[in-house]
Amino acid sequence: MKKLFAEFFGTYWLVFGGCGSALFAAGIPELGIGFAGVSLAFGLTVLTMAYAVGHISGGHFNPAVSFGLWAGGRFEAKDLVSYILAQCLGAIAAAGSLFVILSGKPGFAIDNTKAGAFASNGYGAFSPDGYSMMSAFLAEFVLTLFFLLIILGATDKLANGKFAGVAIGLGLTLIHLVSIPITNTSVNPARSTSQALFTQGEPLMQLWLFWVAPILGAVAAGFIYKNLLQQSETE
Amino acid sequence: MKKLFAEFFGTYWLVFGGCGSALFAAGIPELGIGFAGVSLAFGLTVLTMAYAVGHISGGHFNPAVSFGLWAGGRFEAKDLVSYILAQCLGAIAAAGSLFVILSGKPGFAIDNTKAGAFASNGYGAFSPDGYSMMSAFLAEFVLTLFFLLIILGATDKLANGKFAGVAIGLGLTLIHLVSIPITNTSVNPARSTSQALFTQGEPLMQLWLFWVAPILGAVAAGFIYKNLLQQSETE
Amino acid sequence: MKKLFAEFFGTYWLVFGGCGSALFAAGIPELGIGFAGVSLAFGLTVLTMAYAVGHISGGHFNPAVSFGLWAGGRFEAKDLVSYILAQCLGAIAAAGSLFVILSGKPGFAIDNTKAGAFASNGYGAFSPDGYSMMSAFLAEFVLTLFFLLIILGATDKLANGKFAGVAIGLGLTLIHLVSIPITNTSVNPARSTSQALFTQGEPLMQLWLFWVAPILGAVAAGFIYKNLLQQSETE
Amino acid sequence: MKKLFAEFFGTYWLVFGGCGSALFAAGIPELGIGFAGVSLAFGLTVLTMAYAVGHISGGHFNPAVSFGLWAGGRFEAKDLVSYILAQCLGAIAAAGSLFVILSGKPGFAIDNTKAGAFASNGYGAFSPDGYSMMSAFLAEFVLTLFFLLIILGATDKLANGKFAGVAIGLGLTLIHLVSIPITNTSVNPARSTSQALFTQGEPLMQLWLFWVAPILGAVAAGFIYKNLLQQSETE
Repeated sequence: MKKLFAEFFGTYWLVFGGCGSALFAAGIPELGIGFAGVSLAFGLTVLTMAYAVGHISGGHFNPAVSFGLWAGGRFEAKDLVSYILAQCLGAIAAAGSLFVILSGKPGFAIDNTKAGAFASNGYGAFSPDGYSMMSAFLAEFVLTLFFLLIILGATDKLANGKFAGVAIGLGLTLIHLVSIPITNTSVNPARSTSQALFTQGEPLMQLWLFWVAPILGAVAAGFIYKNLLQQSETE
Repeated sequence: MKKLFAEFFGTYWLVFGGCGSALFAAGIPELGIGFAGVSLAFGLTVLTMAYAVGHISGGHFNPAVSFGLWAGGRFEAKDLVSYILAQCLGAIAAAGSLFVILSGKPGFAIDNTKAGAFASNGYGAFSPDGYSMMSAFLAEFVLTLFFLLIILGATDKLANGKFAGVAIGLGLTLIHLVSIPITNTSVNPARSTSQALFTQGEPLMQLWLFWVAPILGAVAAGFIYKNLLQQSETE
Repeated sequence: MKKLFAEFFGTYWLVFGGCGSALFAAGIPELGIGFAGVSLAFGLTVLTMAYAVGHISGGHFNPAVSFGLWAGGRFEAKDLVSYILAQCLGAIAAAGSLFVILSGKPGFAIDNTKAGAFASNGYGAFSPDGYSMMSAFLAEFVLTLFFLLIILGATDKLANGKFAGVAIGLGLTLIHLVSIPITNTSVNPARSTSQALFTQGEPLMQLWLFWVAPILGAVAAGFIYKNLLQQSETE
Repeated sequence: MKKLFAEFFGTYWLVFGGCGSALFAAGIPELGIGFAGVSLAFGLTVLTMAYAVGHISGGHFNPAVSFGLWAGGRFEAKDLVSYILAQCLGAIAAAGSLFVILSGKPGFAIDNTKAGAFASNGYGAFSPDGYSMMSAFLAEFVLTLFFLLIILGATDKLANGKFAGVAIGLGLTLIHLVSIPITNTSVNPARSTSQALFTQGEPLMQLWLFWVAPILGAVAAGFIYKNLLQQSETE
C-alpha cells in the first residue's frame, strides 16, 4: 500500500510541477520560462521524487515505465494494474489542483480548440508546431524507448546505480527539450490522460496515441535491453 | 551555537542569492535571466549550503522546513525557536545587504505599490500574474507540502541520502519554476519576512499568508510521510 | 558485440537528442530553447547514456573520444575501427529518424545553402556567426582537447570516478555554450558525418575539418594527460 | 609540478569556457545564451575541472580560493605564489586563445570604452548596469566570502565530500546569476587580470578592486569558517 501512495504522490508531483510550470509560467512575455524551463521542471519532478520515494515504490510515476520494467524483467505483471491506477489517480488529482489554482486568475478558461490547451498532448492540428500523426507517433515511440533504456541501464546491478535518479530525471528534461514542439511531449500516458480529461474535445480523441506509442516504445526497450545490452554478472 | 551560525549564514545566502538574482539580473532586457534563472538561483543557494553546512545544522534555512521536520519526527520542538530566529536574522541581514548594493545604482527606489517589489511575495493585486488569495494559499500549501516530502524522503535512512542536497536544492528550483507568477514564490516565511520588512506597505500586510500556508503544508507533509510513506527498516 | 550495440544506441541518442533539440525546438520564436537549451540537450544525451550503458562499452559515443582514450593509454587500438563504425552507424540512423519526423511537418525542406542546415557543422560562410576556417579549427581543437582532459581526468583511478558521467556530460554542455556560434559545435566526427550526409553540398565538403581537428585535439589531450598531469598511484 | 600544470589547465578552461561563452554566444539576438547561459558556463568550467584534476592540485583555479584555503588552514603559505602564478598564466593563455579565435570573425575589435568589453570586469561607468564602486566592492566581497564558505564547508572532513565539485561549480553559477549586472562578475583575480590585459584602458585601471575585494572576502571566509562553523571531529 505504501508503494501505491508513493506512486500516487510521485505522479501528482510530475503533473503538478511539469504541467504547472507550463500553465503558470511558460507563456509570460519576456520573463517566462519557455520550453527549456518547462523541460527542466518535468525532469526535476522525477529527479526529486526518485530520491524521495524511489526507495519505496521504485519510482515509476508513469504507466509506460511500469510496462517497460515488466518487459525488461524487473517488475511483476501482477502489480501493473494497481501501479497504473495509482499513477492515473495521482495525475488526475494534480490536474484538478491546477484547475482550481488557475480558476483564481481573472479570465481563465480552457480553450480546447488550441494545441496544448491545459498542457494537453496532441498531433496534427493539435501539435504545437504542426507535426503529423505519424511523426508524433514515431517521436513518442523513440523517446519512450530511450527513456526506458536509460532507466533499465542506470538501474542495472552492474551500473553506478546511485546516480539513476539524476540520469532518469535529466533524461526526461532532455526528452522535453526535443519534443515539446512535436506533441507537447507525453512519453507518459497518465500525464496525457489527466490533462485530456479536463480539456475534453480533440485532445481526448487523440489520447489513444499517448497510450499506445509510449507503451510500445517502452516494451521494445525492455526487449532490446535484455537481449542486446544486458550483461550477465559473469561476463 | 555552531548550528545557529550555520542556519544564519545559510538563510543569508538563500535570500542574498535568490532574491539578489531577481533584483539585479532578472529584469534586464534581452540578456536578463528571467524566471528560470531566478528559479535556478534559489535552488542553488540551498544545494550549495546543504553540502557546505548541512553536516553542521541539518541545513533547514527555512522555518517551514524546521516545522515540517518536527512534524515528521526528525527535529526536536525545543530547537524550533532558536533555529527560526537564526533563519530570520540571516534573511534580514541579507535583505539589508541587497538594499545597500542596490542603493549604489542611480535611480534605485522600492516602489511598494507594484507586485514583487524588492522581490517580495504577494497575492491578488500583488501576485505577479494576478492570482487570488485562495489560489496563492493553495499553491504555497501544496508546494511546501511537496518540498517537505522531498526533504523527508531524500533524508530517510532507507534512501540514497548523499543525493539529498541535490534533490532538495533542485526541488526548490522546480517550485520556483512553477509558482513565481502566482506569489513570486515563498514556501519560506523567513525569506518573505525579510523582503516585506524592507518593502513595508501591502507586502507586509500580506505576510501572514507566507507564514501560515507554508507551515501548514510542511506540517501536513510530516504527517503524510510518517503515516502513508515511511517504511520501517524491517519492512 | 554488446559493446558495439551500446555505442550504436548511445551515439544514436546523442544525435537524436542533441541535433533533434536544435531542429525541433531551438528556433521557435519566444518560447524556443535557444543555444542554451541545445547545449543542455547535447550534454544530457551523454550524461544519460554514460550512466545507462557506460558500464557496458565505456560510453564513448564519439570517434574523437575513442582516439583520445587510445592516446591516453586507456583503450586498445584494435577496437578503434569497430567502435567508430558503430558510432557512425548510430549517428546516421538517428539523422534518418530526425529526417522522417521532420518530413511530417508541412513545408519541411533542408536548405543546404544556409549555415547550420539540418544541424550541420561548418566554417566560413557556413559558420553560424561567420568565423573563419582557422578560428573554427582552433576552437574545435581546443574544445576537444579539454573534453578529453575532462574524460581522462574524471575517469582516472585516483579520481572521484562515480561523478565522471556528470562531469563529462555537463562538459559537453559547456562546450556547446561556447562554440555553437563558431561551428555549430562538433567535437564529434560521427555527429558531423551523419548531418553532412543528409545535407550534402558545402557541409559535406567541410566535413574533413570535423574529423581532423577533434581527433588531433583528442590525441593531444592523451599525451598531455599522460605526461603532464597523470599521477602514479604511489606519488 | 603536476599540481601547477593542473592549475594552469584548470584556469585556462575557466577563462576559455566562461569568458568564451560570453564573447561568442551571449549577445546573439534571439538565440543567444544570455546571462544565465554564461553563468552556467562559468560554473561548469569549475565543476568539470574539479572532477578532472581536483585530485591532482585540489582544484583552486583562482587566487582568491588559494588565499581563502590558506586562511582556513587547508593550504600552505609557501605554495601560494606558485599556484597564483600558474593560475594567472593559464588565464592569460586562455584570453590569448579567445583573442585569436575572435580575430577570425570579420569586424572584430575590442572597444574598451564599453562596460564588459572582452568580458572584462568593472564598476561605475564600467559596471554592466551602472553600479557604484562601493556596491561593486561589497558584492565581490560578499560573493567571494560565500564562495569560500561553500568550498571550505563542502570539503570539510565531516561533509559529504564527493559532491564538493558539484556544489562548488554550481555555486559559481549562482554567483554569476546574481552579479553579472553589477561587475560582470569576477570573484577571481586571475580571470579579471587576463581580460584586463587584453582590454587595457579603464578595465586595467579598475583591476585593483578585483584583487582586493575577492581576496579580502576569501580570507574573511577562512576565519569565519574556522571560528564559527567548523566542528571538531569529536563534537
